[in-house]
Amino acid sequence: MDFLKSFLILCLISAASSDEHVDTGSHLLPRHLIVELPETMESRCDNSIEEVRLRCASWRVAVEANNLSPWKTVPDDCVDYVKEYMLGRSYEIDLEIVSVEAEKFAMSVDLRGDGMDVWIFDVDETLLSNLPYYAQHGYGSEIFDNIQFDKWVLEGVAQAINPSLKLYKHVQKLGFKIFLLTGRTGNKRNITTNNLIMAGFENWDRLILRGEEDHGKTAVAFKSDKRKEIMEEGFRIIGNSGDQWSDLIGSYVSMRSFKLSNPMYFIS
Amino acid sequence: MDFLKSFLILCLISAASSDEHVDTGSHLLPRHLIVELPETMESRCDNSIEEVRLRCASWRVAVEANNLSPWKTVPDDCVDYVKEYMLGRSYEIDLEIVSVEAEKFAMSVDLRGDGMDVWIFDVDETLLSNLPYYAQHGYGSEIFDNIQFDKWVLEGVAQAINPSLKLYKHVQKLGFKIFLLTGRTGNKRNITTNNLIMAGFENWDRLILRGEEDHGKTAVAFKSDKRKEIMEEGFRIIGNSGDQWSDLIGSYVSMRSFKLSNPMYFIS
Repeated sequence: MDFLKSFLILCLISAASSDEHVDTGSHLLPRHLIVELPETMESRCDNSIEEVRLRCASWRVAVEANNLSPWKTVPDDCVDYVKEYMLGRSYEIDLEIVSVEAEKFAMSVDLRGDGMDVWIFDVDETLLSNLPYYAQHGYGSEIFDNIQFDKWVLEGVAQAINPSLKLYKHVQKLGFKIFLLTGRTGNKRNITTNNLIMAGFENWDRLILRGEEDHGKTAVAFKSDKRKEIMEEGFRIIGNSGDQWSDLIGSYVSMRSFKLSNPMYFIS
Repeated sequence: MDFLKSFLILCLISAASSDEHVDTGSHLLPRHLIVELPETMESRCDNSIEEVRLRCASWRVAVEANNLSPWKTVPDDCVDYVKEYMLGRSYEIDLEIVSVEAEKFAMSVDLRGDGMDVWIFDVDETLLSNLPYYAQHGYGSEIFDNIQFDKWVLEGVAQAINPSLKLYKHVQKLGFKIFLLTGRTGNKRNITTNNLIMAGFENWDRLILRGEEDHGKTAVAFKSDKRKEIMEEGFRIIGNSGDQWSDLIGSYVSMRSFKLSNPMYFIS
């Protein structure tokens, strides 16, 4: 995987330049065959468990800060880290914090009361958790298999992400219109509706899925186009919650965006 | 601090609603005076060292994902965490990863060779480290004191952030024009120039500081305005590196932005 390869290359380059530095002015002498790395470099470039864990934590933060190029799978060395993260307390707290921050913001907004203030939610890994599927497919270490994933989606048994359910109910109570904007295709409208209701989500105002006309668009383009249509109808998009940066960036963005944690996959 | 307060409130609300739930249908009976929390809630809302550490780590990720409202200081409970983070290996790795990712992107760009492709760097906590100042001022736990901070800046002794220096040299070699865009005011041009040179930065193409006309603008507005001027001159802003979201967002944004870690302060 590119990420750890880059790191190793960085270490090798540093090692090589340390060696060159030692050799300055002595290039006619036989070069050292055994490269003696400075102690700090040696200790930093090893693959000790702690170092790998720290690198994987950094990789995850880089995902959340949108610093990475599109990535296809979790780095091999980070699969255990991602599994532990997803099943542990950290993922829970991350979801709780983003929900609390979104609630604080929602409460701070002075709604006009004309029914035109909107909060957008993405569906997968935002309202509904596909963790049981990913647990069976390497926590993001396998290349995405849309046929297998579709089978899982059609079971319609995804559970709510509870902090998002809490936020959903809260913004609804505050008077926001709730628009669900998902990359799921139109043929999954019924199963998505049933799954959402089963998970406790009620009375959304719109469920917008990918139609025929959106075929081939990136998620950023599709979601930007839909937000444009929404705004052209006169709605004000105040908040937007999504687990992918492609839910949040592009054009016609919301007043505030909230990025839910997701180290398992990347959609561009 | 709002963040942990919100968390405590969340815990108290959950506790209260658990209690109400138990009391359903028995509201005429005396209410329990001692609230017995369900075990999971109790264990989650305690202030065990591990729980606080996890919450602080989540808070830091929320900073990096731009999920927080403007914040004035590091949460009280997270000061030790932030200190440990800033002085430890995690901050180093975070800086290295963002630099490596930016380099990969820079190398992937097909420069036109007309000298109009630009990489923008912020200065403080992006090229130069003010960590010695913040180490003397509570690692972000004290309210920002611009008089004291100016004194430190005027010493002109800030060291380079090494992964940024490496990136700087690399994009320069690739042929990018280098524009430095900083919130420092114009009266600090000389000291900033000298400090940057002392730290190893050479031959930038422009150093843009806040002028009189930028007084009172937010950082987002100031930096957006400057990027607008740059683009109107015909430059293409390909990359932008900064430790604040206000370096990167707004209008006239670069093709790719790179957020360097900074849990010590927030500039809006």
